[in-house]
Amino acid sequence: MTTIGLPPIPRRFATLSVAHAPGQQRTVNPPSDATLVDFSHGDVSAFPPPPAAVEAVAEGVRQGGRWAYTPYRGSDDARTYLAGRLAELTGREVDPAGEVLITPGTQASLFLALSSVVERGDAVAIGSPDYFAYRKITQYLEARPVDIHLAYRDAHRPGEFDLQELRAAFAGGARVFVFSNPNNPTGVVYARDHLRDLCEIAKDYDACVIVDQLYCRQIFDGRPYTHLRGLDRSFDNCITVLGPSKTESLSGYRLGAAVGPRALVDRMEALQGLLTLRAPGYSQAALMRWFAEPDGWLAERVAAHRAIRDDLMEVIATSKVATARRTEGGSYLFLRLGTLDGRLDEFVSRLHAEAGVVVTRGLEFGDYPSEVRLNFSQDHAAAVDALRRLISFAETF
Amino acid sequence: MTTIGLPPIPRRFATLSVAHAPGQQRTVNPPSDATLVDFSHGDVSAFPPPPAAVEAVAEGVRQGGRWAYTPYRGSDDARTYLAGRLAELTGREVDPAGEVLITPGTQASLFLALSSVVERGDAVAIGSPDYFAYRKITQYLEARPVDIHLAYRDAHRPGEFDLQELRAAFAGGARVFVFSNPNNPTGVVYARDHLRDLCEIAKDYDACVIVDQLYCRQIFDGRPYTHLRGLDRSFDNCITVLGPSKTESLSGYRLGAAVGPRALVDRMEALQGLLTLRAPGYSQAALMRWFAEPDGWLAERVAAHRAIRDDLMEVIATSKVATARRTEGGSYLFLRLGTLDGRLDEFVSRLHAEAGVVVTRGLEFGDYPSEVRLNFSQDHAAAVDALRRLISFAETF
Repeated sequence: MTTIGLPPIPRRFATLSVAHAPGQQRTVNPPSDATLVDFSHGDVSAFPPPPAAVEAVAEGVRQGGRWAYTPYRGSDDARTYLAGRLAELTGREVDPAGEVLITPGTQASLFLALSSVVERGDAVAIGSPDYFAYRKITQYLEARPVDIHLAYRDAHRPGEFDLQELRAAFAGGARVFVFSNPNNPTGVVYARDHLRDLCEIAKDYDACVIVDQLYCRQIFDGRPYTHLRGLDRSFDNCITVLGPSKTESLSGYRLGAAVGPRALVDRMEALQGLLTLRAPGYSQAALMRWFAEPDGWLAERVAAHRAIRDDLMEVIATSKVATARRTEGGSYLFLRLGTLDGRLDEFVSRLHAEAGVVVTRGLEFGDYPSEVRLNFSQDHAAAVDALRRLISFAETF
Repeated sequence: MTTIGLPPIPRRFATLSVAHAPGQQRTVNPPSDATLVDFSHGDVSAFPPPPAAVEAVAEGVRQGGRWAYTPYRGSDDARTYLAGRLAELTGREVDPAGEVLITPGTQASLFLALSSVVERGDAVAIGSPDYFAYRKITQYLEARPVDIHLAYRDAHRPGEFDLQELRAAFAGGARVFVFSNPNNPTGVVYARDHLRDLCEIAKDYDACVIVDQLYCRQIFDGRPYTHLRGLDRSFDNCITVLGPSKTESLSGYRLGAAVGPRALVDRMEALQGLLTLRAPGYSQAALMRWFAEPDGWLAERVAAHRAIRDDLMEVIATSKVATARRTEGGSYLFLRLGTLDGRLDEFVSRLHAEAGVVVTRGLEFGDYPSEVRLNFSQDHAAAVDALRRLISFAETF
C-alpha cells in the first residue's frame, strides 16, 4: 500500500495560525447560551445597518447583471460616488478612475496594500499594540515586523508612537509603516501634531504609510480627527484603508475601500484579480448609501457607543484587578488584568466556558500577555453585565 | 522640493496584469449600447439565480448576527449542509468539520489551494489551454508554470492531456497539477479512464491535484461526468474546487467552496483569515439552497445552454474562418479564427468598439494567438446574432 504524503507546508505558512483570532474561538455557532456575550466582534443585531443600505443591496440583486460583474477595482458608479465622499471626508480630492479600490472587506484592503509595497525580506514598521493582521500579513509575505511602540497606558497623556523607534526602523531599511487610527485595540486617536511629525519622518525616508481608518467615523467626546491623507498634500505615499463594516454595521456584506496613489491602486487591483476578482457585486450597491445615512443616524450611533464605553469604564474603575485607557474612538477596550500571571490562554478559554464571555487575547496584538480586547459594540446591558462577570472571574482566577 | 518615490514593485507583481482579463475590457459600465453582447462572462439577467437562493440571502440579512460573522472556514450550518451534498455529488464522504471550506468565490478557492501547496521556485503543472488564473497565481507565487497540453482540436477524439508531459513534469520536480473539468475554455469533459490514468501518475509521484469543477453540473448530451475525488479513494492528495456562480448564476454573491484533505483545508483557512477573513456572511445563506433547486430547474438550464451551443455551432459551421470544438460541458466556446495573423489584441479591441462584441483573447489561456473565448450563457438570440457579427468582422479583418 502506497503512503500518500501531502505537499510540505510552504514556508510562508509556517507562522500562520487562526486559532486565537476573533470569531475563531467559537466551536458552536450560534452559541446555545443566550447570556453569552461575544466581545471578539460587534453584534450587528444590537446595532443593525442603516435600512437604506440593506435595501440598496436588495435592489442590486433585482438589477442583476449591472452589479454581478463589476470591474475588478469596483463598480464605476460606486467608485465615482465614493471618490466624492472620501474627498470630503479626508480633505483631499480623490480620482475615481485611479485612486480608489473597492475590496471584499477592509481585511482585503490591508492584505492588498501590504502586498503591493512589501518585498520578501523587507523590514515593516508596525504599531504595537496594533491590529494583529498587520504582523501576520507581514510574516506571510516573508518580511520582518519591527514594533513601533505606542505609549497609551497613561490616561492623562495623549497616546503617541515612539517616533525615535520609527525613525530608527526607516534608517534600518524599513520602507513601510502600518497602523490604525483610531488604534485597535486601545482606542487611541492620534493628535494632528503627532501625525504631522510622523509624516515628516516618513517623507525623510521616502517611506509608505498605510493607515487603517476603519473606525474614523466613531470618535468620542468631540475630539478632532485628522486624516493623514489630507494632512500634507506633498505626501503622496499613503494608502488609506476604510470600510463600512463597523460603525455602519455592514459587516456581513464584505466591503472595504482603499484610497492611494494610482500606481499602488493598480497593483492592488492586479492582485485582487487573482485573489477574489472583485468585491461581492450586489454588496457594492450598499456603498451608494455610505456617508449618506439619515440625519442624526451617525451621531446617535456614536452616542450609544460612548454611553456603553462610559458604563464599562465605571465597572472597571471599581475593580481592583482591571485597568483600561478610556477609548477615544472605535469600539474597543484593551483591558489589562493584574491576575493572569502568564495564564492568558487558560483565562480566555475558561472565561468563555465558565462565564459565557468571549474576548480576544492581548498576545494577538503584540507582546501583551496580561491584556484582553473587548469590542463593546454590543447590547448595552448585556455588555455591562458580561464585563462584571469577566472581572469577577479574573478576581478569583 | 523633495521628490517622493513610490516603493519599488514587489517581485511577485512583475508579471501581473489584468488589462485583458474577462470583465476588465469594459471602460463603461453598464454598456450604453443595448446590442452589445459581453461574451467575457455570463449574463445573469438572461439566466437568473434560483429565487429561493436569493430569498435565503434576504432572510440571512434579516437574521443579522447569525450570518454576519461566521468562522473563517464558513458557517457551520452551511458547511454541514454542503458536506452532505458534496458527498452525494462526488461519491465520497466529506467531513464538514475538516474537509470543506467556503470562500469568497471560486477564484479565492483556487488562490488559496495553490498557495497552500506551492512553494517559491516550484514547478507547477498546468493544463494548456486552461483557465488563465492558474498560470497567473503560479507566477505570483514565484513558481514556474509547466504546460500540460490538451489535445482538443480533433472533434472526433476525446479531449485528453498529454500524459507523457505530465509524467515528465512530475519527474522534473513538479508536485502539483491544476486543471479544470469541464475544461475552460474548450468545454472538454474528461473520460473516466483518462482521469484514472492521470490519477495513477499523480500517485506515482505523491503529487497533489487541484481540479476546478466550477461547471460540473452543466454537462451536455447525457455524457458521464467523473469526479476525481470519488474516483480512487486511496488518492487523498486532491483539492476539488466548486462554486454556484456559473450554472446557478449566484455570481454577484462571491461564493465558492473547496473540498480536500484536512491538513490542506486548515492551511487554506489560515490564509483566508489574512486575505478576506471569510466569505460574505449573508451570501453564505444562499448555499443552503445549492443542490436543492426546484425539480427540473437544473435540467431546464442545461437544456437552454445546449440549445444556445447548438445554434452557435451551426453559425460556426457555415463560416470559412472559424472553427471550434463542440462544448461538452460548461458555457465556453474556444473559437479559432484563421484571419487574425498575429493581430489578436487589435481584433479583440476593434470587435468591441466596431461590432459591439466583447470576447476574451486566447492568449489568456496559454499560447493561443488565433483564439478567442466566448461565454455563451447569454440571451439566446442575442448570442447568435453577436456570433454572426463576430464572424463577419473576422472575415473582413
